Amino acid sequence: MPGSDANLEAYCRSVAERAKLASMQTARLSGQVKNDWLRASAQALRSNAEAILVSNRFDLDAAKAAGLSPALIDRLTLDPRRVEALAGALESVAALPDPLGEVLDSSRRPNGLEIAKIRVPLGVVFFVYESRPNVTADAAAICLKSGNAVILRGGKEAAHSSRALVDQLRASAKDVGVPIDAVQLVETPDREAVSHFLGMADCIDVAIPRGGEALIRRVAAEAKMPVIKHFTGNCHMYVDRVADLDMAVKLIVNSKCQRPGVCNACESLLVHREIAPAFLPLAARALLQQGVELRGDERTRQHIPEAKMATESDFFTEYLDLILAVKVVDSLNDAISHINHFGSHHTDAIVTNDLHAAREFTAAVDSAAVMVNASTRFNDGGEFGLGAEIGISTDKFHARGPCGLKELTSYKYVCYGTGQIRQ
Amino acid sequence: MPGSDANLEAYCRSVAERAKLASMQTARLSGQVKNDWLRASAQALRSNAEAILVSNRFDLDAAKAAGLSPALIDRLTLDPRRVEALAGALESVAALPDPLGEVLDSSRRPNGLEIAKIRVPLGVVFFVYESRPNVTADAAAICLKSGNAVILRGGKEAAHSSRALVDQLRASAKDVGVPIDAVQLVETPDREAVSHFLGMADCIDVAIPRGGEALIRRVAAEAKMPVIKHFTGNCHMYVDRVADLDMAVKLIVNSKCQRPGVCNACESLLVHREIAPAFLPLAARALLQQGVELRGDERTRQHIPEAKMATESDFFTEYLDLILAVKVVDSLNDAISHINHFGSHHTDAIVTNDLHAAREFTAAVDSAAVMVNASTRFNDGGEFGLGAEIGISTDKFHARGPCGLKELTSYKYVCYGTGQIRQ
Repeated sequence: MPGSDANLEAYCRSVAERAKLASMQTARLSGQVKNDWLRASAQALRSNAEAILVSNRFDLDAAKAAGLSPALIDRLTLDPRRVEALAGALESVAALPDPLGEVLDSSRRPNGLEIAKIRVPLGVVFFVYESRPNVTADAAAICLKSGNAVILRGGKEAAHSSRALVDQLRASAKDVGVPIDAVQLVETPDREAVSHFLGMADCIDVAIPRGGEALIRRVAAEAKMPVIKHFTGNCHMYVDRVADLDMAVKLIVNSKCQRPGVCNACESLLVHREIAPAFLPLAARALLQQGVELRGDERTRQHIPEAKMATESDFFTEYLDLILAVKVVDSLNDAISHINHFGSHHTDAIVTNDLHAAREFTAAVDSAAVMVNASTRFNDGGEFGLGAEIGISTDKFHARGPCGLKELTSYKYVCYGTGQIRQ
Repeated sequence: MPGSDANLEAYCRSVAERAKLASMQTARLSGQVKNDWLRASAQALRSNAEAILVSNRFDLDAAKAAGLSPALIDRLTLDPRRVEALAGALESVAALPDPLGEVLDSSRRPNGLEIAKIRVPLGVVFFVYESRPNVTADAAAICLKSGNAVILRGGKEAAHSSRALVDQLRASAKDVGVPIDAVQLVETPDREAVSHFLGMADCIDVAIPRGGEALIRRVAAEAKMPVIKHFTGNCHMYVDRVADLDMAVKLIVNSKCQRPGVCNACESLLVHREIAPAFLPLAARALLQQGVELRGDERTRQHIPEAKMATESDFFTEYLDLILAVKVVDSLNDAISHINHFGSHHTDAIVTNDLHAAREFTAAVDSAAVMVNASTRFNDGGEFGLGAEIGISTDKFHARGPCGLKELTSYKYVCYGTGQIRQ
């Protein structure tokens, strides 16, 4: 464990350099060896479940002593069922196809040069996340399956649990011939360690922060390497002039209430003025029944007397709670402009029976995922069939939306010739 | 033209916001309209060639007065033939397929949700480059064809020439229904303007610097948005134990001498010790004939008496000149380690007849392009068949190697349902 500042930096440098070295080996592991590691790790978690739960108890005791909220303590808690789920998740990643080696494009040029664009790993991933221990195992699995080495920097609340999990992953690595430094956990709670890693662009290829907005802003501001950001999801549902009312009610209730604390939950409802008199009372009844607090503009409140008055800031807010902002709009175009202005380019949905409106909405709304007649909650790696995800990117650069195995890769050009020279 | 610091920032903000607005329109232009613009621009350059040459004369007079080198003045010079080449390049971009709308992946999920991953533009490109005027027209063409708006910040040496070209591009835009602010040229030589733009991540989606290492380092350090970097090309050619000697000589001469001042020219030659006695004298004769200065390690100098002594720093250097560092290595693995340590991950080549060596080299060398029995000079958008390029990325993130139309795009997920909700 590092002491002084210089010690801390030397410690971080050593972790980063070991990750870099490991990444040169992980890039070339066969799919078989990576899957052996995932399956051996799953068995190791099962066999050592009791020891893992003992470590988890240290974290839970500290969390209770620190007065963490019951919701946070629940996220932190492992039990035999959750350890089994962790093991199962590792086996699911093993069952996914190996993304590496795929030929993304190829051609034979007029001079006979044969060019192939081949999928390769990014290298070293620095993953900074908050306190759920299951994220530790998931992230390690997905990074290594895609051929990368990973430096895990988890929340200090889960330090003992993460340590116990990573110990098992590293022991399994040793057993099957994966370099143990392919998975490293940062051994110090010192916040400065994150800054040191974020400066080491010579060893780390990408930083991925996952957690609250402050964490992501800090990583984005300090990182000298590229960052895959996972910002707020201020998601919208727009109910168009011609829409199936029952479907629209079902979709807004699901988008808002099925799991309100996550990034693809809906935060604002926009309703075309022509359908508002029929739709808003129906929607209000269903939403109020689920305990949702409604905050509407003036025209909304004409149809929903229970709605509080919405301010402009409501429309910028990711509530992550049972609160919904509601606005009546004059047209499809007004809905699109509102979403592109107030939204966070994460997930936005239209409910409509109008072909032109569906096509216009999907073309003009500048978001990672645009839904027609479906819940916003579907923007998710599992739901999209990616199998596993390390986050949902709100960037447009490199990866957008759910980030699975392929999003943790790059490519190289491999060219075979017979002595071609450039004229 | 802005005066005070506050004026400068307000000017940059206005340029960036106009670009953002324009980008929402350029994203949705039909391929036809974009091609109309490219062809109309080509005609406008031809029709206004004389006026463009007059503007170019202002730059040339200033360059001579400032004592610029003949090579730099040549790069700056336009003449009727070069204006015609500029126009022809715009027409070539028009002839390329539209990258937008391509479905990169799609699936129908078990619940019936139809998911398509569709290619869309990045948005606003801030392109910072040095003094060649042809880059102005090329960059505008490739950015707009891929649906982006572009802010062009050229070198001050070419200010009048770039202004004259951009005036034509904007006039043609107006004629065919492309928003004129899709192409903007920064109207001030103030270096601070670049810093202001690099801070405007809310309007600008990507910064692309093209020029000397200092420029690229500055942009990478200051940018708050993603950067596509185009760093040094410290490229290698490795002649393996079993290789065709004549082919190897031809390839090293082409890689070093065909155009020594560019990023994919070869800077270091590595030779297996078993082939060194036969190969090095042959290679030396051909290279010395081309006026190449050779700098070798001790073992090289046993076979090439004319070679100067190489220091370690020679092997880190991108000469961009008729100088070549030469080293004898003991094995394929030593060659690979040398390249991954001293190289810049740009372009590296092996000359070999050994299948295993070719496969090992292409797998283990971590570079954007890896060549087998071909010149390093082929790592180029035109040579790879991309049609046009805005640079050659040395990053692994987002885009690696030649950056053409597709590398200036992102994607979005468009999902059609029939009322699906998440369980």
